[in-house]
Amino acid sequence: MAAQTVASTTESTVDLGPAAALSCRECGHRVPLGPVFACEECFGPLEIAYDFSAYDAEELRKRIEAGPANIWRYAPLLPVPADVADKPNLNPGWTKLVKADHLANELGVDAGKLFVKDDSGNPTHSFKDRVVAQALEAARAFGFTTLSCSSTGNLAGAVGAAAARAGFRSCVFIPHDLEQGKVVMAAIYGGELVGIEGNYDDVNRFCSELIGDPAGEGWGFVNVNLRPYYAEGSKTLAYEICEQLGWQLPDQLVVPIASGSQLTKIDKGLQELIKLGLVEDKPYKIFGAQAEGCSPVSTAFKAGHDVVRPQKPNTIAKSLAIGNPADGPYVLDIARRTGGFVEDVTDEQVVDAIKILARTEGIFAETAGGVTVGVTKKLIENGVLDPTRTTVVLNTGDGLKTLDAVAGTGLTATIRPNLDSFREAGLA
Amino acid sequence: MAAQTVASTTESTVDLGPAAALSCRECGHRVPLGPVFACEECFGPLEIAYDFSAYDAEELRKRIEAGPANIWRYAPLLPVPADVADKPNLNPGWTKLVKADHLANELGVDAGKLFVKDDSGNPTHSFKDRVVAQALEAARAFGFTTLSCSSTGNLAGAVGAAAARAGFRSCVFIPHDLEQGKVVMAAIYGGELVGIEGNYDDVNRFCSELIGDPAGEGWGFVNVNLRPYYAEGSKTLAYEICEQLGWQLPDQLVVPIASGSQLTKIDKGLQELIKLGLVEDKPYKIFGAQAEGCSPVSTAFKAGHDVVRPQKPNTIAKSLAIGNPADGPYVLDIARRTGGFVEDVTDEQVVDAIKILARTEGIFAETAGGVTVGVTKKLIENGVLDPTRTTVVLNTGDGLKTLDAVAGTGLTATIRPNLDSFREAGLA
Repeated sequence: MAAQTVASTTESTVDLGPAAALSCRECGHRVPLGPVFACEECFGPLEIAYDFSAYDAEELRKRIEAGPANIWRYAPLLPVPADVADKPNLNPGWTKLVKADHLANELGVDAGKLFVKDDSGNPTHSFKDRVVAQALEAARAFGFTTLSCSSTGNLAGAVGAAAARAGFRSCVFIPHDLEQGKVVMAAIYGGELVGIEGNYDDVNRFCSELIGDPAGEGWGFVNVNLRPYYAEGSKTLAYEICEQLGWQLPDQLVVPIASGSQLTKIDKGLQELIKLGLVEDKPYKIFGAQAEGCSPVSTAFKAGHDVVRPQKPNTIAKSLAIGNPADGPYVLDIARRTGGFVEDVTDEQVVDAIKILARTEGIFAETAGGVTVGVTKKLIENGVLDPTRTTVVLNTGDGLKTLDAVAGTGLTATIRPNLDSFREAGLA
Repeated sequence: MAAQTVASTTESTVDLGPAAALSCRECGHRVPLGPVFACEECFGPLEIAYDFSAYDAEELRKRIEAGPANIWRYAPLLPVPADVADKPNLNPGWTKLVKADHLANELGVDAGKLFVKDDSGNPTHSFKDRVVAQALEAARAFGFTTLSCSSTGNLAGAVGAAAARAGFRSCVFIPHDLEQGKVVMAAIYGGELVGIEGNYDDVNRFCSELIGDPAGEGWGFVNVNLRPYYAEGSKTLAYEICEQLGWQLPDQLVVPIASGSQLTKIDKGLQELIKLGLVEDKPYKIFGAQAEGCSPVSTAFKAGHDVVRPQKPNTIAKSLAIGNPADGPYVLDIARRTGGFVEDVTDEQVVDAIKILARTEGIFAETAGGVTVGVTKKLIENGVLDPTRTTVVLNTGDGLKTLDAVAGTGLTATIRPNLDSFREAGLA
């Protein structure tokens, strides 16, 4: 009887496919699916609990392979309705997994063993399209009509674009003094773009206030009240990497750390594939990558701490500049459990790594991609990452969005328009 | 005997798949495959002649559908070796065909009938990746070791990136006084980036001189001596559109005009699909789109002329700003033969159209995309384009590359970080 009562109170009435309930990551308390993000018992973070019990591995694999060339091929594993691919959304994902033999050669990795998962190919050119697409479907299911977020960059554009495609109103909050280029990238989609007189912390505080106020009714804040759904989008990176490797786990992954959510969800995705029998169970190592100017997690990892001490960010890798990462402790757990490591690189190394990746593979990465490639290089040099094993490095954004970081790059020669001048420059 | 002799002199020794020879578009004279672009008999443009005689429609369709999610699924129809997908290249294409119901509603097109082919999803975010990928494979086949071009924008980045991935040296020539942002986008890939003291015409003249000089030996200029191969890349837009429509021809296409090559090759691609039996033969109309500030083809079309009078370009749509378009007369032929039209829009209409597309579909287009969407709007308003028929509009580039064009776009409100200020701004 008691068990039945519990089942009844955790029953969800919205259709989000295999998502059965929300479950607290700390105490396991379950509540029905809804726009909530903190456990009512212990204030721990809520995440999606799934019912995958009906799946047969072979049937599921075939169903996925016959699906569309975007994240909705994994709809059976995501908190979305079965007909999600028919609804208007940006359909991100299924980005390229690039076999990076020239980069491997440069870094001393065995040929055929190094891959770059290039998420700059998403609709608004960052991995944020994956998480926003999940939040949008949750917003639809809960009857929200406005999509919102606080942001200083990639997320603002991803939310504006997704809302436009889906026919939602959007209202994005940013610090009022952002660079003009970033404002244009966010404003072009025609939603409300509100500058807050204050810094990013002020913007966040205001958003929390708005959620609790009647004025925020009907608003889905992708990274606040829709966060449990939003965060699941990062699982699709794990699914795609394994499917693109021929349904195999990589031996090593190098993942950037901002809040740490992406890394924890990639681990969750890999564990799901193992449990579902879609990949063979074998050890893998997850390595976290930070910029030295915002390295609270790598600092804690190296010091052997379980808690992460907040840091005031000062780095060109602005999309990773979260000084108090919510999922920091979970990242430490995962890196230690899998035998990985958390490392950081200087801004100079970030810029060098951006150039190395562009020169060797023709991929122009955002600063976050410079962080992962730079950390990969450092981990190999230090003997921490095994250059003989299959390794996947994430590039989560596009270099066109952080042109300032490499502004010094320029002409290799200037000549007059004739062959003599060409020869004098030593170009022949 | 005479026929045998001709056959012998036109035999090609390189393996470029179904490509059998080069053939003059004016006089039909055939020569073996090689790095040449003008007919030795009449100076007409050379293009690829194929041998598709062995293909069975059903088998070919299945082979394509089982192929990779990039242009190499169409390798049987392109001048590339059969194993092209195994070689290191950027693998562009298979970009999204977006069912644009919100845009349709805005422009007065029937629901479900309007599509945007969004080529901003290519590796360097413009359709140029398609044509450069073809030129690269030709360069490989001819034993070239340097990939080169003259450029003022998208092409420079596409060549630099493709050369980096493939392990080629690259040497790109640009006017020395380009905007710093464009220089960075081209320089990041680490090839030679040479500024020429002069304007774009000087750059082009110098490149022609270099091709004829021993200093240019071993150099593949993608848009000069490799142009016949390069141009074929645009056929893949036609193939993808038809396959993504379920192997059907669209009724109407709106295509931007720079040199006019893209439009003529899209027509060629559609004709090939009809002849191969991959789509049902039915009429289609091709509409050309120009900016008013560079509208030599639309001017000639409207005046009923067969020749195109050169114009000095003055428009924000710089990627279309070719005042003396080489394929202009062919474009006029195709627009007239298919019952289409060539139209132009003002720079103000270009900016409006960029905003309409972003607001309705979450697609941030380059100015060239503003030209096609703007022309589509104008053609519907003028009763020239039928809003009840299936219509595909091309977006060939990414708005991040032409931020200046929409620099006026900004915050919709600025508030203090509290709910009273939020309510005063009328945002609740």
